[in-house]
Formats: sequence, structure tokens, C-alpha cells
Amino acid sequence: MTEPQYDVLAIGNAIVDVIARAEEDFLMALGMHKGAMTLIDEARARSIYDAMGPAVEISGGSAANTAAGVASLGGRAAFIGKVKDDELGRVFAHDIRAAGVAFASPPALNGPATARCYILVTPDGERTLNTYLGAAQNLGRVDIDTTTVAAAAITYLEGYLWDPRDAKDAFLKAAASAHAAARLVALTLSDAFCVDRWREEFLQLVRGGTIDLLLANESELRSLYQTADFDTALAALRADAKLAVVTRSEKGCVVVSGPQTHEVAAFPIERIVDTTGAGDLFAAGFLFGLARGNDLAVAARIGALAAAEVIQHIGARPQSSLKALAQQHGLPID
Amino acid sequence: MTEPQYDVLAIGNAIVDVIARAEEDFLMALGMHKGAMTLIDEARARSIYDAMGPAVEISGGSAANTAAGVASLGGRAAFIGKVKDDELGRVFAHDIRAAGVAFASPPALNGPATARCYILVTPDGERTLNTYLGAAQNLGRVDIDTTTVAAAAITYLEGYLWDPRDAKDAFLKAAASAHAAARLVALTLSDAFCVDRWREEFLQLVRGGTIDLLLANESELRSLYQTADFDTALAALRADAKLAVVTRSEKGCVVVSGPQTHEVAAFPIERIVDTTGAGDLFAAGFLFGLARGNDLAVAARIGALAAAEVIQHIGARPQSSLKALAQQHGLPID
Repeated sequence: MTEPQYDVLAIGNAIVDVIARAEEDFLMALGMHKGAMTLIDEARARSIYDAMGPAVEISGGSAANTAAGVASLGGRAAFIGKVKDDELGRVFAHDIRAAGVAFASPPALNGPATARCYILVTPDGERTLNTYLGAAQNLGRVDIDTTTVAAAAITYLEGYLWDPRDAKDAFLKAAASAHAAARLVALTLSDAFCVDRWREEFLQLVRGGTIDLLLANESELRSLYQTADFDTALAALRADAKLAVVTRSEKGCVVVSGPQTHEVAAFPIERIVDTTGAGDLFAAGFLFGLARGNDLAVAARIGALAAAEVIQHIGARPQSSLKALAQQHGLPID
Repeated sequence: MTEPQYDVLAIGNAIVDVIARAEEDFLMALGMHKGAMTLIDEARARSIYDAMGPAVEISGGSAANTAAGVASLGGRAAFIGKVKDDELGRVFAHDIRAAGVAFASPPALNGPATARCYILVTPDGERTLNTYLGAAQNLGRVDIDTTTVAAAAITYLEGYLWDPRDAKDAFLKAAASAHAAARLVALTLSDAFCVDRWREEFLQLVRGGTIDLLLANESELRSLYQTADFDTALAALRADAKLAVVTRSEKGCVVVSGPQTHEVAAFPIERIVDTTGAGDLFAAGFLFGLARGNDLAVAARIGALAAAEVIQHIGARPQSSLKALAQQHGLPID
């Protein structure tokens, strides 16, 4: 096995976030599930956009945010995802490359527009996502560059990829290529509703060994095992997954690996502004920590630090150097 | 004279801001004048964008920001400006309407793309602007709806309009229509370099009575009268303009009206994040205050409050209700 060229290759939907503040009433009036990610069609996208307030456009996409986070920590990151050759597609490509992430996926020349996610941030900092997948739906096997996959210590896939039909095949090709090169494959469950759509298939991926490392938050874990009891769900997870980490917002996270358990506290923060990207940035820190050969608990602490930075401002990508922040707090990032 | 339907009609370049943080070195390397607005062509736009870091897209445009500020104060605002029928043009139109501003200018169906301004924010919060005017250049006489002009208490024009050739004619048509309806015409000098380009013409507009109210910051005023001495410039301004207000950053502002002078302090703030929009929002508060019949000093205090809000976050439009903020501070906004 050669030395990996990348710490993390992230594969996911390439999305530009359109972020506006909104009151709880607005979510109710538009029939949204607060805190969830809902897939929407073009007509619904138009009606949400017409109704929402002045917005800010910032490149997003769950796995892409993670890749940007790895780069901000000083890691070597790559991203695979599909945009269209349009204005927002060029914004996405600019921003991820400017963040220091290798991004070589060619844009689609025709078909639907670059994906966008209409994000409503309520006064409590919680975000409600409405995603129009557009061009991201056309990510397919042909987009998986196996040389890049083989060159990455960890290939990280988002559960959201299970939604577009062709992306599933791309997902499986990437996982097989990574394992053929003796690399690790990680999956985030993405969202409790996404788990509800694909529960059996996700469990099969974990139990069958397609996935070496599972990342989930508490509600996704509960959805996976259809139980309200956290300890019951955690015990089931321990039996199914080789390695897993469950994030619990202000309660920190729990890493389970066979009989071992590590509980790591959340990083103290001044004020939550926008929780968008919290899970994505936790994943960035955790995966980067693992790829660099740190203990699970240390990797989780880097994850907690990265998540803390991103929830203190609008937008799902770091605004200051996570490497400098980690150094300030004495975390190993070399 | 009938009761005006709008407090302020703002006419200016319709621009989407592309904002990124940058170090002073970056400005030097790209040969930018720190703090200034420079007009750029498409090739320069591309090279700046390629070199700059991850960005955020937010609707901007000086006069458009002022219109959004008037609406946030609870005022009735309208805006005239030119976008193209493209993704960023739709973003601009959405955001200004969602801010509560009447915007009826039809988008251009062909020609250059919607204007964008590449804004580099240095660690001191200062912003350096690089504007690709694109579709905004095609604002012309045909876009000036004289019914709207006649219905606005104040028609507010930006000096930047003097750059695109056809916009000058649009500007003069708007000023003539406003005066025909016995309304006020206000002009902001926009930028010291803009003043340098059009000094004689701006002086003629003020001295000849095309402009009833002139807004400028200190460096624009110095540029207008080509003097480093503030008092000399202010004396010249008093002789030339019927009514003028000069903003002086943390030193507050000075209103001159014939022999009268009002000095109003800046509003205390916690921390400057991004000065983009400070002048635009001061103008919003001042014009709104005047349109509602307040004293000059009270109008200036509303301006100072609005400017203080906008420099404490990224982006040039208010993020919280200026009406609520003004009420909290006991300023008259009815």
C-alpha cells in the first residue's frame, strides 16, 4: 500500500446554499419539517424562494463542506460531485478550489441547473433544509475516478447520495475501489428522514462491510434502529458497525469500536448562530484525525473543535483557519 | 402636490456582491487601491475571481442597499436598476423584493451578465471593491418610469451612474421628472475615484440646482474640492450646495444647510466586521428621516444608527429590522 496522496476524498451532492433567516411561523406556513432536509422539485423550489426573505448564497453540500473542513485543518482533501456549467456551478467550483480542495469533476453541459439548498435559519440557530438536486442527480459511475479513490486514505460518502438513482452506483463503485486499494470507507447517515427512506439498505451496507466507519447524529441513529432509547440504539450500532461515531450536539459525541467506548465533550462556544454544517465539520475533524493516525478520542476532539467554529457563523464552511485554531488548543494536526 | 407614494426612489447599478476575506498582501499583489471602487472588465473580473478565496454572494449595489435600508426602517422604497435575466439577476431581483422594495425594472434578455462586485475585506474590516458592470451599463432613459419618480418624496441617485454612458441620460431624465413633480433630488458622490473621474460634471450638477441634497464622505469631499483641508472643503460645499451631509466614519457626520451646521456623533458599536454599505445605510436613514419631515439632526441620527448596524456584519444590507432598532433607541420612525 503506497502512501496516500489525500487524507480524505469526499463524494456527495454539489450544492449551493441559499440561506435566509425565518421565523418558526414561516416554516409552519410552508409545511416544512423543522431541522430536516427535504428533497424538493423545481416548482416547489420556486415557491419557497418566492416566499423567503433576502438570502445569501454560499457553497455548501454536506460532503463538500467536510472536504473544505479537512483542507482548513491542513489536510489534503479531494471532492467528487456534479454541477452544471452555469453561474452557480462556477461559484461552487471556485469556492471549493479556493478552499484548497482538489475538484476535477467536469460540469454537466446540459440538463438541470446546479443544485441549490434553500436553508431557513430560525432564531434558535436551527436550520431547515429544502434541496433541489438538479445537476447533482446526474453523478454516475463515470464520475468516480478510481485513481483518486485509491489515492485517498479515507473515502467519505454521504447518505444523501442514496437519493439520486445513478449516484448509488457511483457510491458502490467508489467503495469497491477504495477497498481494492486497502483504504477505508466512511459513511454519514446525513439526515433522519434520509435514513427513513433507505434504512434497510444502509444497514446492509454497514453489516456487509461496505462501510468501515459510520457517522451519525442522535436522531439519525434512532431512526436507523427505530427506537427512542439511545442506549438500545447504541448497543445495536456496536454490534453492526466496525467503528462508529455518534454526535449529540451540546452533549458531545460517543465513539464505539468493538467493546471500546469513548465519550468526548462538545467544544465550549459563545453563541450558536447557525447550526448548518455542524455534522459536516465534525466529520472533517474526525476523519482528518483518523487519517493522520491519531487515537479515536483525539480525532473526536478535532471534530468537536471544527464543529464549534462552524456553528458560530452563517454558512457551513469554516471562516477561519481550523489548523490555527487546533494549534491554539494544543490538538495534533501534523 | 399629491402625497408621495414612496419615501425614497433609489436609482443605481444593480449588482451582486461577491465577498471574500483577504490579507493586505493580496490587494498589493493584485495591484488594488485599498478602500476604493475600481471598474474592471470581464478578463480582470475572471483573474481576480480565480485568485480570491471562498466567497459569499449577497445582493448589493450602493443605491439598492440604500433602498433596502429605507424599507427596513419601515419606509416605502422603490429601486430602478438593470440586471440580466440570469441566475445572479434573479438573485438580485428576489433579494430586493424580499427586502420590501418595489422593483419593476425588466431584466435584459441578452447582452452582458448581471453586474458583480468582487469585494475583498481586509482584517481591519475595510473593503476594496472591483466592479464588473455588465448588464448594469445598459440602464437607459427608457428604464426611468416617470410615474414612479413623481410618486417619490426623494429621488436618490448614485454618482456611480455617471460611469456607464447611457445611465447619465437616465440620471438626468429622473432628476428633471422629480423636479417637474416638485420632489427632491439627492446625489451621493459614491467614491473618491469616481469623483476624480467626474469632478467638473458633479460640481455643475450641484451648482446648477440639478441636485438638492448632496451626500459624501470625507475623502469624496476632499476629492471634489481637491484639498486636504476638511474645513476648506466644507466651506466650498456650503457655498455650492443647498443642503449637504458629509460622513466621517467614527467621527460622525456634518450637515450643512446655508449658514446652519449640525454635527452628529457616530453610533457606538462593539466591533467593525465589514464596512461595506456604511455610506449606503447612512443615506437610507438620513433620506428616510428627511422624507418623514424630521429635523436634519434627527435624520442624521437615524442615518448613524443604520450605518452602525450594517458594519457589524458581512454584507451591505441590514440583517435585523432597523425599524425595531430605531424604536429601541427612541428615534422617530413614523
